[in-house]
Amino acid sequence: MSVTNRQIRLAARPSGLIQPGDWEHRSVPVEEPGPGQFAGRTRVISLDPAMRPWLDDRPSYLPPVGIGEVMRAGSVIEVTASHHPDFQPGDHVVGRFGVQEYVVSDGKGAMKIDTTLASPSTYLGALGTPGMTAYFGLLDVGALKDGETVVVSGAAGAVGTMAGQIAKVRGCRVVGIAGGPEKCSLLTDELGYDAAIDYRAADVKQALRESAPNGIDVYFDNVGGSILDAALSNLAMHARVVICGAISQYNDTTSAQGPSNYTSLLIRRARMEGFVVFDYAERYPQAAQEIAGWIRAGHIKIKEHVVRGTVDDFPGALQMLFRGENVGKLVLELA
Amino acid sequence: MSVTNRQIRLAARPSGLIQPGDWEHRSVPVEEPGPGQFAGRTRVISLDPAMRPWLDDRPSYLPPVGIGEVMRAGSVIEVTASHHPDFQPGDHVVGRFGVQEYVVSDGKGAMKIDTTLASPSTYLGALGTPGMTAYFGLLDVGALKDGETVVVSGAAGAVGTMAGQIAKVRGCRVVGIAGGPEKCSLLTDELGYDAAIDYRAADVKQALRESAPNGIDVYFDNVGGSILDAALSNLAMHARVVICGAISQYNDTTSAQGPSNYTSLLIRRARMEGFVVFDYAERYPQAAQEIAGWIRAGHIKIKEHVVRGTVDDFPGALQMLFRGENVGKLVLELA
Repeated sequence: MSVTNRQIRLAARPSGLIQPGDWEHRSVPVEEPGPGQFAGRTRVISLDPAMRPWLDDRPSYLPPVGIGEVMRAGSVIEVTASHHPDFQPGDHVVGRFGVQEYVVSDGKGAMKIDTTLASPSTYLGALGTPGMTAYFGLLDVGALKDGETVVVSGAAGAVGTMAGQIAKVRGCRVVGIAGGPEKCSLLTDELGYDAAIDYRAADVKQALRESAPNGIDVYFDNVGGSILDAALSNLAMHARVVICGAISQYNDTTSAQGPSNYTSLLIRRARMEGFVVFDYAERYPQAAQEIAGWIRAGHIKIKEHVVRGTVDDFPGALQMLFRGENVGKLVLELA
Repeated sequence: MSVTNRQIRLAARPSGLIQPGDWEHRSVPVEEPGPGQFAGRTRVISLDPAMRPWLDDRPSYLPPVGIGEVMRAGSVIEVTASHHPDFQPGDHVVGRFGVQEYVVSDGKGAMKIDTTLASPSTYLGALGTPGMTAYFGLLDVGALKDGETVVVSGAAGAVGTMAGQIAKVRGCRVVGIAGGPEKCSLLTDELGYDAAIDYRAADVKQALRESAPNGIDVYFDNVGGSILDAALSNLAMHARVVICGAISQYNDTTSAQGPSNYTSLLIRRARMEGFVVFDYAERYPQAAQEIAGWIRAGHIKIKEHVVRGTVDDFPGALQMLFRGENVGKLVLELA
């Protein structure tokens, strides 16, 4: 068989921003599925801010990607051959199959999807990990109550667009923080946010005081850094700060910037809580069903940013996340 | 009436460490109690780390002490005259009467105490705000479960000695962090802590790894700064970080140091929560009764550090807290 499988592997641990030389682009022979396995061809690859900390050799909720390993990534594949009872040729399957063109899997962590209900990319976004992250982060960790004031940072991103819209479904006042006037317009004009703050142009602390005059009940943080500080300065009593991510810190080679005014947690009797969405995996089906209902009812709009290309475009597409160039869920769709 | 009332008033807002000139020592005529009031003579004045942030003009859980006002302080007075039905001459009364020799009160926030059960100073310590702070911080905010691993910073202080001993009552493994070998010996030899870390001599992060090998379930923080960082690096899954105080930051004129590794909350699915003990005032009697029972049973030892002098000694005694010179509850007992 002369077809080769193009893969993106981690060649070296990046220091700060990922450099092209940190990746190895390699072609290997395509594997055949063994007993109990299936094979497939990658259709869409997920690009996520969390990929950056996965490359660091430090304790986290997943082991770091090993040097020489195929880059870890969620993706949707189309099954081409199968010796697995649950997956048939033609099926679309979502799983953590890595940045490569061809996949062989034993089905662990893989789930068949229905592409007549939603596009493959949506199973990586609104109905995938980002949607689940927004849902459980806001409703479970944030213990959101109807009508509260919610502030979301990274609001135009994959998780942010979902978190803000879910909060709107719950009748909340929603303020989004994002970079640039286009993203801010999207939030207020298209996604129904009550206000948007352009952190590149505004004094975020002051802007939050104006947009959330009664204080923030739930702050859903994707970015960390000075924006987290600004939010902590504007908490309502008994506020919940949900630590979902810290994209502003991921490429920082110095020690991460901690929230200098964390003692506002004391003054406001507030809590700051971290979570990892995988802990909620048993409840994904129920959450996905609820989100799908909101999408059908027009309460939630799907925002996706599709890069079309080959797996070789993965490194460049990943950088878009850290330059804030994506709106909504960023995916790499293979031709 | 020729008797004068000596008072310590705030003359200027300190920047960093409090300077002698930030206080005004003033003598004023002693007041007579009016209708519905009682008068008393101060016996013991409480000295608390929280007094330092009370002097800053920034939003907090209490308004800042005003320039020219008598310094806010809890104290125990002995009633000398009364036109109030609930307080009679000879009664000992605890309340927020301020740093002054003579007091006139309408009884708001004042509570009669039984000095045959415990000494006046104990009503400012183990049975007072520090005891309540340890109790509700650990059991309610920290949601302590029997047998967990608990780490307490400022462990030899008024709140710390109580928090650690309450955790021992609950069958926990308790590690205290304090400054100097004497305090550390006190914690392990006298108060029953399982381990003590001298933050002046040890690498706290490394020492916590050894003393809490399975991770910290509840971290009760009185100090903030680098010790908070060290604790965050050693959390167990689903840990609770109780933000009680941040004494290391109170005299800092630069921006406070935030916990640089706060994203460990995410990795460990942990939460960090602040509280103000006054919110639990309705439950003080029940908590005090439980603590008194533990004291009687010998499970909790009362540690008090008594400075004997006049109200003019208040400024000097207060500085002892920030130099770490006290062991247990620091009080100023008037001759």
